[in-house]
Amino acid sequence: MSLIVCKFGGSSVATPERVMNVAGIVTDMYKSGKDVVVALSAQGKTTDNLITKAHEINPAASKREMDVLLSAGEQISVSLLAMAIEKLGYPVVSLLGWQAGFRTDSNYSRARIKRIDTDRLQAELAKRSIVIVAGFQGINKYDDVTTLGRGGSDTSAVALAAALRADSCKIFTDVDGVYTADPRTVKGAVKLSEITYDEMLELATLGAKVLHNRSVEMAKKYNVEIEVLSSLERKPGTIVKEVAKVEKMFIKGVAGDEKIARISIIGVKDTPGIAFKIFSKIAAKKINVDIILQSVGRDGTKDITFTVPQEQSGDAVVTLEEMLGSIGGQRVMCDTNVSKVSVVGAGMETHPGVAAKMFEALYGADINIQMISTSEIKISVLIDSEDTARALQVVHDAFILE
Amino acid sequence: MSLIVCKFGGSSVATPERVMNVAGIVTDMYKSGKDVVVALSAQGKTTDNLITKAHEINPAASKREMDVLLSAGEQISVSLLAMAIEKLGYPVVSLLGWQAGFRTDSNYSRARIKRIDTDRLQAELAKRSIVIVAGFQGINKYDDVTTLGRGGSDTSAVALAAALRADSCKIFTDVDGVYTADPRTVKGAVKLSEITYDEMLELATLGAKVLHNRSVEMAKKYNVEIEVLSSLERKPGTIVKEVAKVEKMFIKGVAGDEKIARISIIGVKDTPGIAFKIFSKIAAKKINVDIILQSVGRDGTKDITFTVPQEQSGDAVVTLEEMLGSIGGQRVMCDTNVSKVSVVGAGMETHPGVAAKMFEALYGADINIQMISTSEIKISVLIDSEDTARALQVVHDAFILE
Repeated sequence: MSLIVCKFGGSSVATPERVMNVAGIVTDMYKSGKDVVVALSAQGKTTDNLITKAHEINPAASKREMDVLLSAGEQISVSLLAMAIEKLGYPVVSLLGWQAGFRTDSNYSRARIKRIDTDRLQAELAKRSIVIVAGFQGINKYDDVTTLGRGGSDTSAVALAAALRADSCKIFTDVDGVYTADPRTVKGAVKLSEITYDEMLELATLGAKVLHNRSVEMAKKYNVEIEVLSSLERKPGTIVKEVAKVEKMFIKGVAGDEKIARISIIGVKDTPGIAFKIFSKIAAKKINVDIILQSVGRDGTKDITFTVPQEQSGDAVVTLEEMLGSIGGQRVMCDTNVSKVSVVGAGMETHPGVAAKMFEALYGADINIQMISTSEIKISVLIDSEDTARALQVVHDAFILE
Repeated sequence: MSLIVCKFGGSSVATPERVMNVAGIVTDMYKSGKDVVVALSAQGKTTDNLITKAHEINPAASKREMDVLLSAGEQISVSLLAMAIEKLGYPVVSLLGWQAGFRTDSNYSRARIKRIDTDRLQAELAKRSIVIVAGFQGINKYDDVTTLGRGGSDTSAVALAAALRADSCKIFTDVDGVYTADPRTVKGAVKLSEITYDEMLELATLGAKVLHNRSVEMAKKYNVEIEVLSSLERKPGTIVKEVAKVEKMFIKGVAGDEKIARISIIGVKDTPGIAFKIFSKIAAKKINVDIILQSVGRDGTKDITFTVPQEQSGDAVVTLEEMLGSIGGQRVMCDTNVSKVSVVGAGMETHPGVAAKMFEALYGADINIQMISTSEIKISVLIDSEDTARALQVVHDAFILE
């Protein structure tokens, strides 16, 4: 029997009508003779509302209790979807994380899946039940509830597809696929029919927000082919896989990220070990560093600049100011009015001139580049955040519309 | 170490302020050197809101899925109370029904507790944690979530007290004890310091709504002494136990129940087996019959009248109308404008004249008695529902104010 694992996000089940819509999609797959397992998120704003409830009582609540609280959100949505499928007359059962065998580590609020004990899942599938699994949640070795963090339901779906050796993993969302740029801000953005895991990872990291990168990493590791498609329109989406069709258009996407900050330490001693000291301290605080730029030493001092997620910039500044004495720096600067614009494409290393074309497009629009970072499949530049929309458009025009 | 099990109802944790208030009560007990286990209901209207959500999607949802849905309510409240106790700086852990070892039968929506596996509870108490247990819920032998039905959290608390051999079981509620009558409707109602299980059972059945009778039955079976007290005022409540202090006032309470219906079958054959046929059919439909009255046979026919909960009266009428042919009855009548007023007191059988005094009080107020039922500790009369408040007052005056 062919098995489909699919995932629906919170906006896909935000209202009773949308829950019924999802029930329709799921039962249509079932009617076509497939076994169906659904990983589900909490409805609409449920998680945010629960977080508000917690903060009213204790803004410093333990992560263990937060996970107990938040996992109630998927508990509500899975039972409601099961009821909707019952109404359509199909056999269905909802399973919470612990019932579906999701065993995780004990890193509350961002646990990692260690394994899925599939006995119960297999038994329900053997009964030909549609199985609705609470995404985002599991239990640890103490039998305590854990949650997987942001994007956890995508990861739940991919883990289910890998554990059950599903033939297909469909991630239903409120967009109908992966685009070459955000269609809401960039004119002429084109939907891709296929994209590789690596390209998708870069786009996810860059804020394309279609798939959480943890889920893509897991899909890559277990070679689970993902289809990203719309829960509102029934048409093909974008396939994410190891090797995508070779297309004339080797640049797969242009993405912007405004939620970053640029941090500089001015006038540190130009001696060995300084960068190590700085970034080991930053890493110990679990701050994610992206682009790093070090000025050429002059007068025995140099400047080190790097980017971090905006929400971690406060932490980063405090950490660096505490170190200033020991590294002999003069001062720490932080600029949050910056954004990163990137082009992504797996064929990039064999196509010279990509960087030049990108810089030319930005120059043509009179946009100043503050920092540059390149990898085998990506070129990123740091610019003023007020230029973001224009930069995305001109870079997209240069590559995609050629 | 002395152990207290306590229970708080939904209104006691309806708002963040009330959650903090409960956290204060619980930590005060803990500070006095006690081990504390709390059984908790869902907040305020949570359960009703979840039921509404389900009905919007499928009014005929399976009880299994309803139980998954509703048990999310206590999951939310236990984690919030744990966060409040964390804020006050005490060690605490919340446990869901399955984590606390509540094993039930598979009667979804009104499951019965079969046992509590106390290993986890004992381990948490050994760590000197305050333990917050989700009331109302458990799991069955298939590891599926079950709920205990109305009043389930009271039952959870008593079961915990029995399983853990607690020294005390305190049921905190929005009233400060058990009264001789509902103080909102009867002037001069007096709070009792003690009451027996049997008296409490009669009062609960009669709609005193302080404790659910399943919890009192369980307390009686395992000899768990219960104290009913207020979560808003800190003062002694009412103790429910096997033998209460002998008091001058042997009538413990006067209660009214307006949610009943009187059903009559007119002109059935006056032959043996008719009552058996009727009430075995009624019992098979799980309709609870209270007072039964059979007229003296005349002209070869008789009338049979009985009372049922108002919500079951429709079922009862349909069931009887289907039988009319086989029992030779003429017609079925149903009156929902009736109510039952009762006096309860364990000493009743040794105090002659209780019935006479009750009837005299009603006669003095010109209230007509339609039916009468007596037991060793209770006398009930059926009257017009519009007379209920007056009847409660005059009967209460006659016994309690004497």
